[in-house]
Amino acid sequence: MASLNILMAQMNTLVGDFDGNTKRVIKIVQSAIDTHDQPVVVFPELTLSGYPPEDLLLRPSIELRVDQSLELLCSQLPEAAWVVIGYPKREGGELYNAAGVIHGGKLVAEYHKQCLPNYQVFDEKRYFVSGSAPCVLDIQGVQVALSICEDIWEKHPTADAAEAGAEILLNLNSSPYHRGKRGERWEMVAERARQAAFPIVYVNQVGGQDELVFDGGSFAVTADGTVAAAAPSFEEGEYWLQYDNENKNQPFSGQAVNAPMNEMAATWQALVLGVRDYVNKNGFKGVVLGLSGGIDSALTLAVAVEALGPERVEAIMMPFRYTSQMSVDDAAEQSKTQGVTHKVISIENIYASFMASLEEEFAGTTPDTTEENLQARCRGVLLMSISNKKGVLVLTTGNKSEMAVGYSTLYGDMAGGFDVLKDVPKTLVFELCRYRNTLGPCIPQRVIDRPPSAELAPDQKDEDSLPPYDILDQILEMYVERDMSAEAIIDHGFDREQVQRVLRLVDINEYKRRQAPIGVRITRRGFGRDRRYPITSGWRIGL
Amino acid sequence: MASLNILMAQMNTLVGDFDGNTKRVIKIVQSAIDTHDQPVVVFPELTLSGYPPEDLLLRPSIELRVDQSLELLCSQLPEAAWVVIGYPKREGGELYNAAGVIHGGKLVAEYHKQCLPNYQVFDEKRYFVSGSAPCVLDIQGVQVALSICEDIWEKHPTADAAEAGAEILLNLNSSPYHRGKRGERWEMVAERARQAAFPIVYVNQVGGQDELVFDGGSFAVTADGTVAAAAPSFEEGEYWLQYDNENKNQPFSGQAVNAPMNEMAATWQALVLGVRDYVNKNGFKGVVLGLSGGIDSALTLAVAVEALGPERVEAIMMPFRYTSQMSVDDAAEQSKTQGVTHKVISIENIYASFMASLEEEFAGTTPDTTEENLQARCRGVLLMSISNKKGVLVLTTGNKSEMAVGYSTLYGDMAGGFDVLKDVPKTLVFELCRYRNTLGPCIPQRVIDRPPSAELAPDQKDEDSLPPYDILDQILEMYVERDMSAEAIIDHGFDREQVQRVLRLVDINEYKRRQAPIGVRITRRGFGRDRRYPITSGWRIGL
Repeated sequence: MASLNILMAQMNTLVGDFDGNTKRVIKIVQSAIDTHDQPVVVFPELTLSGYPPEDLLLRPSIELRVDQSLELLCSQLPEAAWVVIGYPKREGGELYNAAGVIHGGKLVAEYHKQCLPNYQVFDEKRYFVSGSAPCVLDIQGVQVALSICEDIWEKHPTADAAEAGAEILLNLNSSPYHRGKRGERWEMVAERARQAAFPIVYVNQVGGQDELVFDGGSFAVTADGTVAAAAPSFEEGEYWLQYDNENKNQPFSGQAVNAPMNEMAATWQALVLGVRDYVNKNGFKGVVLGLSGGIDSALTLAVAVEALGPERVEAIMMPFRYTSQMSVDDAAEQSKTQGVTHKVISIENIYASFMASLEEEFAGTTPDTTEENLQARCRGVLLMSISNKKGVLVLTTGNKSEMAVGYSTLYGDMAGGFDVLKDVPKTLVFELCRYRNTLGPCIPQRVIDRPPSAELAPDQKDEDSLPPYDILDQILEMYVERDMSAEAIIDHGFDREQVQRVLRLVDINEYKRRQAPIGVRITRRGFGRDRRYPITSGWRIGL
Repeated sequence: MASLNILMAQMNTLVGDFDGNTKRVIKIVQSAIDTHDQPVVVFPELTLSGYPPEDLLLRPSIELRVDQSLELLCSQLPEAAWVVIGYPKREGGELYNAAGVIHGGKLVAEYHKQCLPNYQVFDEKRYFVSGSAPCVLDIQGVQVALSICEDIWEKHPTADAAEAGAEILLNLNSSPYHRGKRGERWEMVAERARQAAFPIVYVNQVGGQDELVFDGGSFAVTADGTVAAAAPSFEEGEYWLQYDNENKNQPFSGQAVNAPMNEMAATWQALVLGVRDYVNKNGFKGVVLGLSGGIDSALTLAVAVEALGPERVEAIMMPFRYTSQMSVDDAAEQSKTQGVTHKVISIENIYASFMASLEEEFAGTTPDTTEENLQARCRGVLLMSISNKKGVLVLTTGNKSEMAVGYSTLYGDMAGGFDVLKDVPKTLVFELCRYRNTLGPCIPQRVIDRPPSAELAPDQKDEDSLPPYDILDQILEMYVERDMSAEAIIDHGFDREQVQRVLRLVDINEYKRRQAPIGVRITRRGFGRDRRYPITSGWRIGL
């Protein structure tokens, strides 16, 4: 009989911070050996560089930095531990996405990732070449194989490991969250385990990195595909598994199966973690946002307070002649409920001074969206001034539906460093508000119930110029996330003219999205690295 | 003896415009057959979709659109012509970057690109799979091979074509300009011709597409590597070659060798074409820009006038208390010289109204860069208002040195749709101004001679907070374009503290660049698709 003490080190790494990440690895392993003999400590993909390091991988000093980290690990890690870490490895002029095992002060095995994702947000073929062989090593009498992330989504790396005699596979991941992803992972890994007839331990990183949020949720499946252990999602931590290779049916003990979060809670947690890590990893003191009395800024405020605490959040209401009293009141009420600093700064005088200065330029013209954009830009400049003066980040509040159709003002409500709801469709904004209010009082009910309005013109409603959001979001999901054509969407029962108008709006607003702040990706296709469209384009919908 | 009438169709395509591009192909071929028997008309890479189509390639209707275009071409092209075009081709579930030959109403041959660039600005592995075989066909007794762009930069595709019996190779390109690129192409293609011992015809597209400018400059080399024909750069047009396969030393006649432009003229043309195509392909009536009296906006104005004519350009001087009379006068003088509409709008009142509204927020603080940014943002909002009202594009004026170190204001001087000088280092801005003035009076000499200043504070000079530009630009070129480490740059004789400060500024300003407008890429590495850095990063210079 052979058994292993396996630790799933669900770590929150920082991209580019070789020193910091290396020290964290050492600390985690030192704690592990205090409680368990000869632990096998498994870290996420590209532990030392963080993920995704992007073009930092093109810098020549990457090699030196990795070598220094590995040397430090070899000299400082407890010799009895088996430590499985990920790092970029240059060999023979090529760069590999590697996983190595350190034991007894030496690197005793190394694996090179075979399947390199180069789709969606991933660009791994820009940097890496593929490995071509399995890696199986003997750890205390157990034949242990390694693989990395995407390797588990194709068949051959796991099959080859089985062929090479593996009894168990350790899979290192930096797998970003999107809605439904956890279920997809469990299913895929279970299928691979059954095919290979061995158990698999899936270790994922946790944390926000620019537009990505890694959700953790590390887990282990048995050879029959049963999930035998699952760590929490969205929490950093270390989770023990006792593995016994004689007990084929129940090889794992020690770690409970954390029931999967419902998707609404997971989405909420993803937004919170995304904001917290962006603000903290970038060293901001706190955040400021424009609180309009509308639902988007209400939810943004709620997420910010959960992420950072009320003392690091400032809400500014910037009324104008079209702002309703209801908006002013509701904004004040939520700020009070949440305990954040609340200020009111009117934009009347600023707006008036712009219009006076533009009098000659605008002579003979009639009001149009220019004046609406101007209101938004007065607000944007105010927020940026506060940001500059106080060293706080401006959170923007645009949702995915608005980003899609360009219902937003560049340098106005789009001015800021991080757009919390960038990948949240408006209908989901409503659901998240309702979800948040189940956790305790937060967003005034009236904010959720009233018809959405940008309040940039008298009695304006979003639905005056856009289809109802439940229709709009369905069309957008089909076009943006599922690449369906206009005809295919119309075939689903939507109005031809409406579909064509929405798709056209999506197409012509690429220029706005290109200058938009980044935000948390929570769907299968967010705007950002995920969707790379030309601005200049003669593409016409209709096929 | 066999001879061919080859037409290099140096076409300016529009990305996504299958209908328009297809019609242009038909028109060009119809003109060709009016003057030459059985012409072989060679178009650039991905003629029908334009290049780069980016994620439009993921849309399912691509297949249908290509099929419709090919059908139209087969039915409408003159049957006697041999037409070589590029298009994305789906086959067996995979997408290829293809080149096809249409003759006699049929597609008679098809080649699949073998080498897919996935570096710098290129993402071809995101979309395409590699072909694996040469394509050689008999055209009027001549064995003609096809290849596509990157194929010519590696050895095997040309060698395989030679092995398969080719007598001449037609290479279809969408090769973007950068400084020095033309010489690199000539050298590489000459080397391939000598290796294969056959002549090569290199056809490149021309035109601006977002941040890329394709410079044309199609050419032909003989088997001994001599450039026997070269079309002009930066001009759309059709260029004939008479090819005679019996005359091994001088197989080509008919097309002169246009001497390579000097690099300063080429850079100027690249900027002009980049602006012209961005404005026209996106349907803007014209442009507006802030003319400050400084050298960056002076050069931007000069490029805009060359690209669009003075009647489509409006220059706005927006003085403040720190604006010198010299700036006001010089801006007015250049506007007059160039014949553009010139307006003066003070930002004093607007600035004052912002400061008054922020009084409570700023209580107890001292002036810092916040107030400087505010000036820039007052100007940005004014320009955007004019843009909105008149349907003109705001050109921004930031140069590459500023973009690199973050010496610019988000939503201020960075507010606009296209940054003409985004990839032009400050020292090159000076050289381009001097070059432009050799073509005729344009930029006041004083603008070139005075020390650069943002005029955002009293007696401010750029060199108060930045190293002298000739030093700065050398450090930036080594770090940004050549990926050199801090130590390697210091070894070149630069001051350690200065190098570390500059590199740190580059690193921490990624967030600004991420929201910057696009601009013309003219160097080996521009900011944009070319350089993909994380915003959140623990990377520390020093190795």
